[in-house]
Amino acid sequence: MSARERTSTMRALAYRKGQLQFLKDEPVPELQPGQALLKIRQAGLCNTDMELVRGYMGFSGILGHEFVAEVVQGSPEWVGKRVVGEINVACGTCDMCRRDIPSQCRHRTTVGIDRHPGAFADYLALDERRLHVVPDTISDDAAVFVEPLAAALHVLEATHILPGDRVVLVGAGKLGLLISQVLVSTGANLTVVSRREKTQQLLQHWGIPFVALEDLPLAQADVVIESTGTPEGFVGAMNLLRPRGTMIMKSTFVGLTPADLTKAVIDEIRLVGSRCGPFDSAIRLLANGRIDTQSLIDARYPFARALKAFEQAQKPSMLKVILDF
Amino acid sequence: MSARERTSTMRALAYRKGQLQFLKDEPVPELQPGQALLKIRQAGLCNTDMELVRGYMGFSGILGHEFVAEVVQGSPEWVGKRVVGEINVACGTCDMCRRDIPSQCRHRTTVGIDRHPGAFADYLALDERRLHVVPDTISDDAAVFVEPLAAALHVLEATHILPGDRVVLVGAGKLGLLISQVLVSTGANLTVVSRREKTQQLLQHWGIPFVALEDLPLAQADVVIESTGTPEGFVGAMNLLRPRGTMIMKSTFVGLTPADLTKAVIDEIRLVGSRCGPFDSAIRLLANGRIDTQSLIDARYPFARALKAFEQAQKPSMLKVILDF
Repeated sequence: MSARERTSTMRALAYRKGQLQFLKDEPVPELQPGQALLKIRQAGLCNTDMELVRGYMGFSGILGHEFVAEVVQGSPEWVGKRVVGEINVACGTCDMCRRDIPSQCRHRTTVGIDRHPGAFADYLALDERRLHVVPDTISDDAAVFVEPLAAALHVLEATHILPGDRVVLVGAGKLGLLISQVLVSTGANLTVVSRREKTQQLLQHWGIPFVALEDLPLAQADVVIESTGTPEGFVGAMNLLRPRGTMIMKSTFVGLTPADLTKAVIDEIRLVGSRCGPFDSAIRLLANGRIDTQSLIDARYPFARALKAFEQAQKPSMLKVILDF
Repeated sequence: MSARERTSTMRALAYRKGQLQFLKDEPVPELQPGQALLKIRQAGLCNTDMELVRGYMGFSGILGHEFVAEVVQGSPEWVGKRVVGEINVACGTCDMCRRDIPSQCRHRTTVGIDRHPGAFADYLALDERRLHVVPDTISDDAAVFVEPLAAALHVLEATHILPGDRVVLVGAGKLGLLISQVLVSTGANLTVVSRREKTQQLLQHWGIPFVALEDLPLAQADVVIESTGTPEGFVGAMNLLRPRGTMIMKSTFVGLTPADLTKAVIDEIRLVGSRCGPFDSAIRLLANGRIDTQSLIDARYPFARALKAFEQAQKPSMLKVILDF
């Protein structure tokens, strides 16, 4: 499809002036040098999207950062390719880029999160350096999980989890359930904290032990992953850690409640913040079929019903909600 | 000296019922199995002592955990030896002891800090497994720094500091100045935050660069050591860290103000609590003369004037105050 064949307007789900709006005549983005134009095939709703409409990051614009798309305009080697895109649009020249950590670029914008239009739209213009080809063996339904699976994989970058470690995951939501699948592959002695029957059924299906928080022994875990998104979750997670244990902090949210670090100092605990992860690894894992993403899809809506999809996604028990374009 | 030759009472500086008291007829401790009786030669005042009399740990009893002593009763191999003693009295059987981390023993008491009598007394009964012989090459004035120097050395256990790292130390007090000397030996690009002229003179003498906090660039340091003991110090230290940087938390104090960890998650920062360190390494470093402890002694008092010494030690500009027995 050439640029000429496209209409000049598109549909988009945007958050502007404190209002979530479904727009029908948003202009199709003009390409900047180095960008490709992506036609979105499918997108996923993330908890961060819910946080953004509560004021997180002061975001204004088109939402959406989990997607699979087709390149419809750009360099010849990209056009026609089915792709996913990294959400951090990096400068390529700052110290963090030179360290090959573009996700922490000093001058980054973030797709659908921070000063960059998102993927809840018919088209998205994105830096070609952020694109990854999706192999044919990965369905659209699976490819839309590349971004959150990469974030889950960052847990393994954040700390070295040993096969003998007692690991507890607190917060078995959409992201947490991806993390649980990544962690169980390490051979670690993993327990997931869960009360919800639906979540427990999934975990049982995957052969991952689960337990209620109050049934776990205090101060025994070598590693705790905190993915609850609540201040109580942080406190509960800390209490599970043994002296010199490691906590991976996966929660970002509006008005994160300050944490008491006295225990961290006295027990010499290691806290590691974790945000984005490696797309290549996520694509490899999905390609070899080791991660069950299909069971995480709880609902799907045509993009025209994006507002309804957003409403559904806010329900606490809801796992992944997919938008089909 | 045999038990019979000693008087049955001794002098002691104790904090009891909310009151700091100099006692003249405290009973000399009875030895429990495995303990040696130490005759204190010299002791040092630490910020933790100041915190304890403000209610930290709910401590009640004889204060003091930095000391050098002579063994006057116990196993034949110990009697007559000049020793320092580790402050964490460990059980030797729990999981943390089995990991060879007795400082994090699950059932520990802590000399002069937590349910164990301290060293601000003529005599202290201490588990022989916690004793270390002081080589003749180390003076009493230096030996009294073994405990805080070990705590300073734990920074090198808490994270791997590379010779090329940009390292900032925030909080150049008694402990901080020991940490600065440990850090400069790593070859790292160290800067110490200091405003006090006296501290700056010491740093200059050691060839360690110093600067005012507001003159440091934000978000550039690979490693920051936070040793201020104040909530503002924590915030200031966080702001200096680059993305994926490491902060070592050395501050323990009453009512540690909760910290906002949003930056830690977004910037994927690593926070590591640090408390006690390796005595053997501290003794080695003092023996080879690489650490200047003498310049850190600001005042010394005979033990009879311990209350006055305690009062002096509370002055913010005061470095180490020594008690001579």
